[in-house]
Parts: sequence; structure tokens; C-alpha cells
Amino acid sequence: MQAIFNNQPAYRTDVSQPSLAEDEALIRLSVAGICATDLELVKGYAGFSRILGHEFIGIVEAVANDKDQHWLNQRVVGSINIGCMHCETCINQGPEHCLHRKVLGIRDKDGVFAGFFTLPVRNLFAVPDSVADECAVFTEPLAAALRVEEQIHSIGPPTVAVIGPGRLGLLIGKVLALAGYEVVMLGRSESSLTLPAQWQLKTGLIQDIPDNSFVCVIDATGQSAGFEHALRIVRPRGCLILKSTFSSIEPIDLSKVVVSEINIIGSRCGPFDKALTLLAENSIPVKTMINGQYLLKDHLAAFDHAAQRGVRKILLRP
Amino acid sequence: MQAIFNNQPAYRTDVSQPSLAEDEALIRLSVAGICATDLELVKGYAGFSRILGHEFIGIVEAVANDKDQHWLNQRVVGSINIGCMHCETCINQGPEHCLHRKVLGIRDKDGVFAGFFTLPVRNLFAVPDSVADECAVFTEPLAAALRVEEQIHSIGPPTVAVIGPGRLGLLIGKVLALAGYEVVMLGRSESSLTLPAQWQLKTGLIQDIPDNSFVCVIDATGQSAGFEHALRIVRPRGCLILKSTFSSIEPIDLSKVVVSEINIIGSRCGPFDKALTLLAENSIPVKTMINGQYLLKDHLAAFDHAAQRGVRKILLRP
Repeated sequence: MQAIFNNQPAYRTDVSQPSLAEDEALIRLSVAGICATDLELVKGYAGFSRILGHEFIGIVEAVANDKDQHWLNQRVVGSINIGCMHCETCINQGPEHCLHRKVLGIRDKDGVFAGFFTLPVRNLFAVPDSVADECAVFTEPLAAALRVEEQIHSIGPPTVAVIGPGRLGLLIGKVLALAGYEVVMLGRSESSLTLPAQWQLKTGLIQDIPDNSFVCVIDATGQSAGFEHALRIVRPRGCLILKSTFSSIEPIDLSKVVVSEINIIGSRCGPFDKALTLLAENSIPVKTMINGQYLLKDHLAAFDHAAQRGVRKILLRP
Repeated sequence: MQAIFNNQPAYRTDVSQPSLAEDEALIRLSVAGICATDLELVKGYAGFSRILGHEFIGIVEAVANDKDQHWLNQRVVGSINIGCMHCETCINQGPEHCLHRKVLGIRDKDGVFAGFFTLPVRNLFAVPDSVADECAVFTEPLAAALRVEEQIHSIGPPTVAVIGPGRLGLLIGKVLALAGYEVVMLGRSESSLTLPAQWQLKTGLIQDIPDNSFVCVIDATGQSAGFEHALRIVRPRGCLILKSTFSSIEPIDLSKVVVSEINIIGSRCGPFDKALTLLAENSIPVKTMINGQYLLKDHLAAFDHAAQRGVRKILLRP
């Protein structure tokens, strides 16, 4: 089968179809999405050298256990953390923070930019017929956006600022707006704010925002400059949700965190079931985020396109 | 009067006694303490160029308002934030995070390393006779230590790690131990852990602690290396209290904050009343932290001594 590796040569057609481990399903890729994390992995983040990709929709072709036969031919999406299922973290909190976990296309587990891939059946979610492939592929980032809502739920300020109106930031803004928050999407350029405005979100230029303006700020820029702006505009004793990883290690002045007693909360994966519900309700116009679609074999053009400024989502097909 | 400024010449004897603003008391210095923040201010942190110092005990010599006459001749300590008292923050939360605040010896307000200084009467706390000057001067850092207890109260893990067994870290460790937490004081050298062990605290070398060991970690090192260790040993979804400011801007890798959904909470000033109660109860052997006492005119030797590794508290007298 074909596959895109995170080492050279990246694209290969001689890859064996993966064998099934216990509890796993074999999935044929329908559509995959390129995420900011993929772009960071290509730059060297996390030292991953296997098959890339973790945003997908596909069809179950085989299962390891007879009891999982009902998954055959199902259209599925899947959560990306594969816990050991034995440790205290897995038992009490789930696999997201298992210290021994594998992560699809990110850590110790081949990803989805391939003809076929595998996942434990417990990670799968059936996709309603009404949700098209091009929408279902947004389940993973939309779940990550919903995680922010879970985290700020107990804080509950009426107004939140989201810095970075890109792939993830836009989904976060829309999810929070649907949940009743007054959202302001902040970007560096007017052009980055066009789509957020079309999505009925209030927008502004980050450089125009005075210091100490918001009780709750979400940084979805994936850049230290964005984090610095977030720290600048958050109010004393306010909350800063840090949403995206970056491979570069930049000098950062954390003195405001101490002096103004800022609460920084890291945020990663979220609930797939709620994301699928939002997609089935057609609540999020995700199709308007798609800037291009490529075949796996055209991965170089696809990754170049995905890395361009202002591009939100590039899809890949087998 | 004499005073130590944070610019050259630092020590002057020709300084006029300060005049009283409305609501203020004139205080004659008894004893002052040199804090890590003072050492940072000398290095350029916060761009402060006035009289240094904010840890003190003194005696009220005069008051601006007749209604405050009962403060005359009182032994007092004082909180350091002078809010505008008109803004929403001052009214609802107190002056600690007023955006227009002055801070004694740190921001827009002459400090206490002088023969006399002033503070609003509302900032003063009477010191019980039973608390000696050399103990009362620890009220401000002890209050800052108690702030950590307030912040982790709702988290409530049984075990906490305090990195940095210095001036502030030791007080934090002891305060948390008194509150019922199982505290481990972590330092870089055996010698730094001698006093913590004398204070009946469990100790360890930070470099021996495995990754992801503690649900709650307090970084009181004032150094980016300490922060990096704190981030390394905190468990996923754990809490990292950041307690000390540093002037240098160092490269810091925040990716674990996101991936492991760490909660970082900045921590600054705390309750003076509770600190005075602990001192009056003789619960904290603060005198064992004193490494030297100097006259204001010997400030150069005093600051040199305070900056030496392993030194916890240097006191100054007029």
C-alpha cells in the first residue's frame, strides 16, 4: 500500500498492509486532514519517524475479534490516544494522559496518511450517514476545540478572546460562541479575519487590543509571539488557555504570570461524541475551511499548501 | 535621612524625610529584609530607580489624619500594594492587582531601606509584643508563602513538591506542612537541604526525581532551570505554582504544558494577618533563616552577602 512517512523517502508504495493487534480494527482511509501538529512533526517536533497523520475518516475493513464484527463496513472516525489501559491514569481518567500511551501518527504508532491503518476498536466512533466525509474529517480538531469549552466551563466569563483565527482557533471560537460565550477572534491581519466574520464571529486585530483587556484568553496561534500577546492582553488573575504546540523553543518572559497571578491551562484532546453531534447538526460550516484537496502521492504539494499563511485545512485522499 | 536607592549613588544621607500624603503614616524603620525581588531590581527588573525595600518592621511616628492617631508609636508591618481604591479590581478583589497600583519599593513608591518611609494606614498591621523585630520582618514573605496555601486549597493533593529551598521556598514548605500537606523540599545540593531537614521537612535532590512524579509542584527557585525541572516532574493534568519572578528572559519549552494539560498558576502576595498569627504562635523558626545583619550604610556588603548561594535572609538596620 502507499504511505507518507516522516522520514526520507517520505512517500512509498511498497508498504505492507498493517497486521491487526488484539482489539484492533483495520481501516481503509477515505479522507485525512493535515493538522498544525503534522507540520511541526515534519520540522522535527517529537522525533517521530513513522507514518504521519491523525485526522481521518475511513471504513472498517477487518477486525481482530469476532465480538467486533458489527464494526465491519462502518464509516468511522477515531480518537488518537492509545493508552495501556492498566495504569491508574487510564483507569481513572482515560488514555489521554497515560504515560505509556501511543498516539496515532504522533508517537509510536503509524498514522493515517496511508491506504490502510489500524486503531483499537475502543477508539472508534461511528459517523452518522448525514455527515459527509469532508465534514467528518474535522471531528478530531473539533473535539480539541470542545476541550476548551470543558476547561473554561467552571470559569465562565461571558467574554473570551481567541488569538489565532486559523485551523484550530476558528473552531474554538465557533464552539464557544455556540455555547453562549461572547467571542472575539483576534488575528494579525484583516485577511485572516474574513472567514471568522463570515462565521458571524466578532473580530479584531491583536495589535489593537490594549493590555489587560480580557479575563479569559485562548492562544491558538502555535507561536511564541501569539503566547506573548495572550499574556499581554489577559487581565490580572485571568485565565490563559494554551492550545497549540510549537517545536521552537523561544525566550519567553513569564514574570507577568507571577506578578498578575495568571492561570495558564494547557489544552489538548477533546470529546469525539460531542464533535460528531455538532457536525450532524450542521452547526459548524467546516467545509468553508477547506483550501485544497490532494492525493497522498502529491503530499509535497499538499504540505507546502498547508504551510502557507492563511490556509486552514488541506485534505488528503488515497 | 539616609536611604538606599536603586541607582547611583545608591547610598545617600541627604535625603529629605518623606512628606505624608492623605491617609498615610510616617514610619521609622526598625528592621528591613532583603528579598529576591530586591536582588532582581538591582539587576534591572521592572526599571525601578527609587528607594529600595519592602520587607520591614517599624514604628509609626506620625499620621496624616487625626482619626488615625491610635496608630502613633505602634510597631507595624505593612502590605506592599497601594491600590487606587476606585477601580473595579480594588473594590471587588483588593489592591493587589489594581492596574494603577503603586508597590512599596518596587513600583512608583519609595521603599523602606531608609530612615523613614510612608504607607497608607489601611496597609498597616499592628505587631503583637511577643513577636520580636527579627521575626516580624518575615511577615511579608510568610504572607506570600501563605498565598500558595490559599491557591492549592481547592486542589488539595496530599503531597506537594517545593523546588528551591531558599528564602521563600522554605517558608512555603513549612506553611504547607503545618496545613497538613506532605511536603518534599527539593534542592540542587545537599547543603541547601540542611535547614529544611532541621525544620522537619522531607528533602530530596531535584536531579534524582523522575519525570511526572508529583500532582502539585511549587517552583520557588526564581530561575528558568527551576521552572524546567518543575515542568518535568509535574504529572499530566497536574498543577505548577510559579512563585518567583526573574529578570532574565530564557528560552522555555512549553509543549508539555499543552500536551499534558498542565495548570500553571502564578502566585504573589498573601495575607498578612495569617502570617502574623503564625509568627505569634512561634510556628515558624524564622530566626534560623537569618544569615547576617548590616547597617543601611553597609548596603554593598549586605547585597553581596544576600546574593551568595545558600544565603536565605539578610537584615538591614538604620
